[in-house]
Amino acid sequence: MPSRPRAVAFDVVETLMSLEPLRPRFAEVGLPPSLLERWFDRLLRDGMALTLAGDYEPFPKVAAAALRTLARGELDEDAVAHVLAGFGELPAHPDVESAMRTLAEAGISMVCLSNGTVETIAGFLAHNGLSSYVDEVISVADVRSWKPPRRVYEYALERMGRPAYEVCLVAVHAFDCHGAKRAGLTTGWASRLEGHYAEVFTPADVLGRDLVDVAHILAALPR
Amino acid sequence: MPSRPRAVAFDVVETLMSLEPLRPRFAEVGLPPSLLERWFDRLLRDGMALTLAGDYEPFPKVAAAALRTLARGELDEDAVAHVLAGFGELPAHPDVESAMRTLAEAGISMVCLSNGTVETIAGFLAHNGLSSYVDEVISVADVRSWKPPRRVYEYALERMGRPAYEVCLVAVHAFDCHGAKRAGLTTGWASRLEGHYAEVFTPADVLGRDLVDVAHILAALPR
Repeated sequence: MPSRPRAVAFDVVETLMSLEPLRPRFAEVGLPPSLLERWFDRLLRDGMALTLAGDYEPFPKVAAAALRTLARGELDEDAVAHVLAGFGELPAHPDVESAMRTLAEAGISMVCLSNGTVETIAGFLAHNGLSSYVDEVISVADVRSWKPPRRVYEYALERMGRPAYEVCLVAVHAFDCHGAKRAGLTTGWASRLEGHYAEVFTPADVLGRDLVDVAHILAALPR
Repeated sequence: MPSRPRAVAFDVVETLMSLEPLRPRFAEVGLPPSLLERWFDRLLRDGMALTLAGDYEPFPKVAAAALRTLARGELDEDAVAHVLAGFGELPAHPDVESAMRTLAEAGISMVCLSNGTVETIAGFLAHNGLSSYVDEVISVADVRSWKPPRRVYEYALERMGRPAYEVCLVAVHAFDCHGAKRAGLTTGWASRLEGHYAEVFTPADVLGRDLVDVAHILAALPR
């Protein structure tokens, strides 16, 4: 039974940020809209591959390369730019604001820990009226490593000035919860995206259908 | 200008082995056949994520978990087993035998270096009459790490008893060529699968449309 966290570190892309408005942009540049999910899996795969090889490239560059590759090189730079420009106006999932309010009312502080850039994430929070809930936006760019190596979560703890047992990583990706768990954090997983928690990853401490569920369970945990 | 390799280390899944016959099995268990590509990206992503977190699970287990997750947990164990049983009878891509013959005639020896298990890869080679071309089947299971960390390629070199400059890694995945390149190997990439070499990865030394192209270029290189 985990204890109530002092702080939550939210994953951002797909956990807070919906990629759905990018789908019509795929169609606008002549790509199948159904490619959206595969593109996101692919860009995570390629970011992880670079990290495994000892290298690092930032989210926008890996995202663009994955898009060009899934289009088999048949996308001009304007088309790539048009799809990625969508990141500037992506909405929060409908459960985010309510979940953040629940955590704030329970005295649980919040940060974001993302594979994305600080600029994109800060812009997303501002654009969706969420900035006031979030103390800090932490990007993996600072440690030049995509999630989920231990050092990424340890860097976040260092930035937060908190020990692992005070922090809960909340994400919709099982691999992110797995990495955080291995770094000693409490973890919360919302099934909204994946529907099923892949058994190869260490189970999350808290499970919910959406972020509201997860926030309510975390807020109700004993100190 | 690279010199002619003494040996080629072939990636296996999608480079030599076609996953296409798994597609009807997706339909047979009620999954969209179009999920095949996404499933393979996803299982690579999850295998890499485990490696990044300092853990390891073998290919069949990660493949099964990725399948269950993409089915949102709505696949019973018989259905999962039915799809994965397809691995027992997968064909080689049509360019494989000719490419291997070209390399053999040029005095270039061959091994396989795969994220898959030795059993599956050895069975695939035997089933497709390719065993006589391949000196050794090397699995990442021995080093408990999915590609592409440097140590995976260094382990393969150790098993082959060759220095990096004598070996060319041949794959259809740019991330695999990138990792091999960072370990000092020569690399050959066939565009058959990806169509476009993602620019975030270090370019391969040799590029071809298929494995026959790559084999001919390698065989023609000066010693």
